[in-house]
Amino acid sequence: MHITCSKDDLMTNINIVSKAVSVKSTLPILECILLSVDDNGFRMTSNDLELAIQTSYIKSDVTKTGSIALESRMFSEIIKKLPDQEVIIYTDEANMTFIKSGKAEFRILGQNSNEFPSLPAVEKNDEYTLSSNEFRNMIKQTIFSISATESKPTLTGELIEIENGSLNVVAVDSFRVSFRVAHIATEKPNRSVIVPGKSLNELSKILPTIDDSELSLYFTEKHILFETDNCIVISRLLEGEFLKYKQIFTDDYTTIIYANKQEILASLERSSLISKDSNKIPIKLKIEDDTLIITSNSETGRSYEEMPIEMDGNMLEVAFNPKYLIDAIKVIDTEKISIQFTTPLSPCIIKGHKSDLYKYLILPLRLNVGENNE
Amino acid sequence: MHITCSKDDLMTNINIVSKAVSVKSTLPILECILLSVDDNGFRMTSNDLELAIQTSYIKSDVTKTGSIALESRMFSEIIKKLPDQEVIIYTDEANMTFIKSGKAEFRILGQNSNEFPSLPAVEKNDEYTLSSNEFRNMIKQTIFSISATESKPTLTGELIEIENGSLNVVAVDSFRVSFRVAHIATEKPNRSVIVPGKSLNELSKILPTIDDSELSLYFTEKHILFETDNCIVISRLLEGEFLKYKQIFTDDYTTIIYANKQEILASLERSSLISKDSNKIPIKLKIEDDTLIITSNSETGRSYEEMPIEMDGNMLEVAFNPKYLIDAIKVIDTEKISIQFTTPLSPCIIKGHKSDLYKYLILPLRLNVGENNE
Repeated sequence: MHITCSKDDLMTNINIVSKAVSVKSTLPILECILLSVDDNGFRMTSNDLELAIQTSYIKSDVTKTGSIALESRMFSEIIKKLPDQEVIIYTDEANMTFIKSGKAEFRILGQNSNEFPSLPAVEKNDEYTLSSNEFRNMIKQTIFSISATESKPTLTGELIEIENGSLNVVAVDSFRVSFRVAHIATEKPNRSVIVPGKSLNELSKILPTIDDSELSLYFTEKHILFETDNCIVISRLLEGEFLKYKQIFTDDYTTIIYANKQEILASLERSSLISKDSNKIPIKLKIEDDTLIITSNSETGRSYEEMPIEMDGNMLEVAFNPKYLIDAIKVIDTEKISIQFTTPLSPCIIKGHKSDLYKYLILPLRLNVGENNE
Repeated sequence: MHITCSKDDLMTNINIVSKAVSVKSTLPILECILLSVDDNGFRMTSNDLELAIQTSYIKSDVTKTGSIALESRMFSEIIKKLPDQEVIIYTDEANMTFIKSGKAEFRILGQNSNEFPSLPAVEKNDEYTLSSNEFRNMIKQTIFSISATESKPTLTGELIEIENGSLNVVAVDSFRVSFRVAHIATEKPNRSVIVPGKSLNELSKILPTIDDSELSLYFTEKHILFETDNCIVISRLLEGEFLKYKQIFTDDYTTIIYANKQEILASLERSSLISKDSNKIPIKLKIEDDTLIITSNSETGRSYEEMPIEMDGNMLEVAFNPKYLIDAIKVIDTEKISIQFTTPLSPCIIKGHKSDLYKYLILPLRLNVGENNE
């Protein structure tokens, strides 16, 4: 192969494909980026066998077709530091790859492109589309609550569900459920798959943030394919049953509060500071007379805060792991939030104000009876 | 104690003293910041037994004198996240410390200030002064070449030497010597001490960067004291003999080159990229006909670069560890640099152009005879 391409276009596309390059693998070829030039042009591919990314054709002058696999880290470092805008890349029969720019010349030994794993075959049948930026937000608002442990492998992924014109994204661990819906107009069949959290995390880093950029989703039995203007991303699916989350969200409550998002977030963050291991210290919410009192209590200290809220229903005292409250309130994008409670031991539900797009359910901690409430 | 102080003043001074707080110590008191209020005002102190920092008196309203030691991390996190500008801090007899701001209140258990180690006694006899910003630069230009290993403990520190109106700072490891001099007008006696690299590193982070801010140095047998407008910093000294560095710097050379600093730096950085473990691959400099040819050669690749230089003297080929060249050229603050050589096996000397304030000596690597020079 032999191409001339701009340094910026190379870097932009290296940054995209690098998200699916193995950092350390027993198969050195998985640490490579595949550069391939066919009659339609030049593009790059990466594949760590769980996630694969292929760029669209990249603007370039093609002198000769062909392909080569180059160790990702070194290739990317060299391109980043080249002196000049124009970059010439070509290979010889022995896979020696020449990179020239200005008065600098590099030779690096590539690997035969035949060894590079082929992309999983995904037939593009039914297409589901939504705004790429919205899908990025959906991942951000849910992914923090996937399970970190592998004891239930399906919970290390997110449910992506298409159901009568809605696209639902759901993440669950033992203490909470994050749910986000987007309305997509489609007559296509319903779908329900579990996508590894790692894949969605990498995908969210490269999704275009421009509002009018579209994302298309395609499904097969074993894979999901995401397509944007810049690239396609193919992820393996997780097998198994996901939690039946729907029956957990109820709309019954006996107390509801409305609070300013930034205020309650700052209060919770401060209250979680009084212990070195802040996640293990419960935080207590006391709701009465349009006031929220937030207290916490550890071996080394104690905090007390009051803030004005709007409320409806009964007075209540309830305790939470502060991290689980903070995680969810952080990602809500409305100025006000609502929290619904029933009893101190039943799950509560957090939402953006007057919005049902995002729902977050969290289990409270048991309040110690007779605890020193001074 | 009982004081009212602004959040910003508290944070500024916490950031200063935190540089001498132990991160993990068998003595929990060393992980604390001492807050003390006497008739002159309020200030903070930290002391990890190697380095101690005491702030100047901090603007505050004093209601009651006294002192308390507070765990640094928690204290600093709480102050950082307080809702309001005005902060009230007071203690009770049982060392319980109350921190109030707006509608937020924290109580944290402090430790008795009697347990806090006292500052080393340093009598302020002979004072040596220079610009605080210049001393910060002197540390930055030398500290990277102190020894990382403890096999020769004195080399883990820097020599600070006052000699007939010059202040010299010198750092040495087995392959290189960094030297920086500042001219200070003084009639005071000559001095020569070795200061731990860690102390100088922390000091450089808190030295004021304003050009007209003065730094004063005082010496005792076991300690050095630095004084700025904001604080005093006292470091233990290292005992032992420093390398006799003066006889190593000679002014003889058979080849000298002058190169643009940014150009040669970029070339060297690129050339060091062709190996995963770039520091182990020698970089070869070939000097001839007002051209510098930089090449490197590893199992996985090869680089070749040409750049125009000015030169005087003989043609030469010499090899270096690229990191050692890059470290020094990075910190030189002139647009052009000079490098002096004698033979391919003798040390070379790097300087800023037409400036003798900074000198850096580096040992070359042995060039393999009969190496493939293709």
